[in-house]
Formats: sequence, structure tokens, C-alpha cells
Amino acid sequence: MVGENLEQRIRAIEDRLEIYNLIAGHPPSADTGADYYAEAVYTEDGVFDRGADLSGATGNEAIAASLKSPGHQAAIAGGLAHFTGLPHIALDGDRAIVTSYLQILAPHKSGEPIEVPNHGSSRGYHIHRVVTNRWELARTASGWKIKRRTIRLVDGSQPSRDILRGALEAYAERA
Amino acid sequence: MVGENLEQRIRAIEDRLEIYNLIAGHPPSADTGADYYAEAVYTEDGVFDRGADLSGATGNEAIAASLKSPGHQAAIAGGLAHFTGLPHIALDGDRAIVTSYLQILAPHKSGEPIEVPNHGSSRGYHIHRVVTNRWELARTASGWKIKRRTIRLVDGSQPSRDILRGALEAYAERA
Amino acid sequence: MVGENLEQRIRAIEDRLEIYNLIAGHPPSADTGADYYAEAVYTEDGVFDRGADLSGATGNEAIAASLKSPGHQAAIAGGLAHFTGLPHIALDGDRAIVTSYLQILAPHKSGEPIEVPNHGSSRGYHIHRVVTNRWELARTASGWKIKRRTIRLVDGSQPSRDILRGALEAYAERA
Repeated sequence: MVGENLEQRIRAIEDRLEIYNLIAGHPPSADTGADYYAEAVYTEDGVFDRGADLSGATGNEAIAASLKSPGHQAAIAGGLAHFTGLPHIALDGDRAIVTSYLQILAPHKSGEPIEVPNHGSSRGYHIHRVVTNRWELARTASGWKIKRRTIRLVDGSQPSRDILRGALEAYAERA
Repeated sequence: MVGENLEQRIRAIEDRLEIYNLIAGHPPSADTGADYYAEAVYTEDGVFDRGADLSGATGNEAIAASLKSPGHQAAIAGGLAHFTGLPHIALDGDRAIVTSYLQILAPHKSGEPIEVPNHGSSRGYHIHRVVTNRWELARTASGWKIKRRTIRLVDGSQPSRDILRGALEAYAERA
Repeated sequence: MVGENLEQRIRAIEDRLEIYNLIAGHPPSADTGADYYAEAVYTEDGVFDRGADLSGATGNEAIAASLKSPGHQAAIAGGLAHFTGLPHIALDGDRAIVTSYLQILAPHKSGEPIEVPNHGSSRGYHIHRVVTNRWELARTASGWKIKRRTIRLVDGSQPSRDILRGALEAYAERA
């Protein structure tokens, strides 16, 4: 028989691993336009807040639909790549706050190709955007889902730093 | 006594953590030319498929040997860096499919150095390649090993998106 | 009742997840100047060794204070972003060696903006530095802490490769 404490510990571990996969699944979905993924991982009233300069969406169906927009499809056809770093997970029972960095990459369309031995010739890629992400997650009957994802551009201004500070809250309180 | 179910859960967790380390060990091995690593982590009949434009290899010994090729050694001497994002792991008993993004970086050889306060002066790095990776893994008596690794360049064409969709299969089936 | 072996396995798993969070917390602390984080996660005699070309610090208080230096604050105001790949963790009881890659990014201050459909217009970012990191960690009464962090620039020279080889030691010994 598994004691309750042990069950809770193992469950918390499994939660964290499931959350890593949820975050790791985002770039493949964004770069293939997988609306079925967005529909499955956002809650019905989920919010994707991209800041003042880009259009977000509310509701898992609207967020999913945005992946099928002509603009997004054009970006995919151009070689869009979302690239995520190691996320920080703050798990609290049936809720979790994930803080992560994301690069949005695109191939250079012009310029001189560069050769790297054993790695071919390439015009390379540019980092189009670097954003910080705050993912507010909730446990549901069908797994962990996104209630709100907020991204802010790293441009030296305060909003992206506000997101980052969210990962350090436990340390700020103790200080 | 540990129940079978509990043992299975803990083993699955340990599997996933071992797999993260396997993927995290790849960039250090590629950037130091560690043939002993490639020899240990690929199966005897393992395949490294780099697509039509770059030469792959079959068999752990051949894959290991390619890290000692003059071309690869020249790339290392030039400051090659493999940089991996957070991988997605789909574990299924003694098999696993890992989907990940990888950047291949190299220092700029020319151009004006830029100064960033408290972070020195640098000509910077260029992103030479961005590739998607599909790792087909199997549990063996000596740990998780790579049966096949397939990489495809992110250039707006279908093959790299096919790899990415592999990470989302469970969602596609339910949709 | 939990057997000792089982308790050890679960504890090792929790250790690794705590260590992932420790590494994931570093970029948010560096990019917000969170001295309270550095003070909490380094040991009192902790060392941050940045190599010969950049100034490091010794002691958690001195390391924390460096995040408040005018130079570091200027870098933050310019849009500094630390971006970490998936780290390799070698856990050995109450000690751990973590090996990771880190990019240091900054927004381009000049140049033509590029438009990516559905992803706005941007001058983009440059990769200022790519460094390898060796984190020597120890378990303490208040969690895992950093005893020594060593970074070396990836520039084709030996020191950064020495750090990377540290992640592969178990494989080198068996070879």
C-alpha cells in the first residue's frame, strides 16, 4: 500500500514531468500550425496575451484558430522556429506557474552563405524575437491545461522583467 | 514492499530523467568530438540520418568515427556549439520517441565587435543551422540507447514539420 | 512504510527536479538583477569564476552585489537575456555536477527591421556570448546550493571543452 505522503510526492513529480512535456509541445504546435494541440491544452476560457503590439486570443478555439490564419501559415512556410529554454516550474497542488524564455527564429532570406566544416553551407537564421513567458496552469480531469499564457518582449522595459520575477517569488519572500 | 504499479511509475520517471540526460549529453559530445559517447549511446545498428544534404552514418562505431573526421575536428576548432532546447518525450514502455530542436552555432569570424556592459566585447555568433530531431530510443541492458536519430533542417519545407508532428501524435489522434 | 531504497530513489528524483529549477532560475535572476536569488542559491563561500577576461566574485554576498553594479544594470536596461539549454545533471548523493550551455542575447540597436508575418517587425537580437557552464552543487539544510560556477567562452579553445567533457566522464571511464 502506498502511503498518502508518498503518493503525493510521486504525483508531484509526475505533474512536473507532464508540465515539461506541455511546454515542450508548444514549439512543435506553433511551427506546424497544430490547432488540435492548442485546442487540447488551453482551457475553454484560456487566454493568450501577446502584449499590446501583437494580437492575442481568448478561448481555446480562438487560440487554435489563430494558428490557421494566413499570417501564421505564411510564417510557417518561411521557416518559423520557436525555440524554448529550460522552464522554471512552481508547482502548488492543482496549480502551477511556469516561467520560460522563448526565441522566435527565421532563416535569413539574403546575405552570403557561410560554410562550417561537416555542417554544410547556410545563410543562417536571425533571432526575430526573444520573449519571456508566464504560463498559468491548472490540473483538470484531462491533464494539465493552460489558463493564461502571457508573453512580453525582452526590450529592456519593465513588463518582461515582471514576468521573470514571478519565477523568483519564493526567494523574494524569504529575503 | 513496493507494489508493481508504484514500481512502474517510479521506473517511468527515472526513464524520463535518464532520457533528458541522454539528450543533454549530445551537445558536449558533438562539440568535443567524444567518440566514446556516441559509441556508448547508439545501438550497434543505430542510424544517424542527417537528410539528403549532409552525410550520416550507420552503426555506433561509424557514427563515433565521424566525430573524429577532419571536417568535424575543424568545426570544433572553429568554436562549434550545439545548443538544445527542451525536448518532448513520449515514453511507451521500453521505447521512447524524443522530439527536440537544436541550434548549431559558430562564432563570427569578421565584423565589428559589440560591447555589452559587464559582459565584454564580442563579434558574436551566428546560428548556422536550426534542425528538428527525432530520437527513437530503446531500453537495453546498459541503459537507454539511440536506435535512430533523424534531423531535418528548418527551412519552410515539409520534412522538419513531419518530425515535429511526431511529438503531437497523441493529440492528433484524440482530435 | 517506504523502504529505504525506494525513499532514496524518490529523493534522487526530487533532487534532480530541484536542480533543474535551480538552473532555470538563473536567467530570470541575472536579467532582473535579483541579488536575493544569488544570495540564496550560492553558499557563503561560493565562487563564480567567469574566466580571465571578465570579473567574477567570491562569496554569495559579493556575487549578489555584482548584479547591482552599474555595468550589470546598464546591460539589463539594454535588454539583456540569458538563455539556457537543457542541462546535464550528474547526481552523486549530496553532490551534483551540472553542465550546461548558455547564450547571452542582446537586441540589435541598429539595422533594418525585418517583418515576420503574424510576429511583428524587429531588428532582432544578436548572440553576444555562448558559454559552457560547470555548476558544482551541494545539498544543504536549505536546499541545493552552488559551491562553484565556472563559465568559459566557446571560442574554439580548450577551456570550454574541458567543461563539456565533465558531463561525459562516466562514459570516458567505461570506454
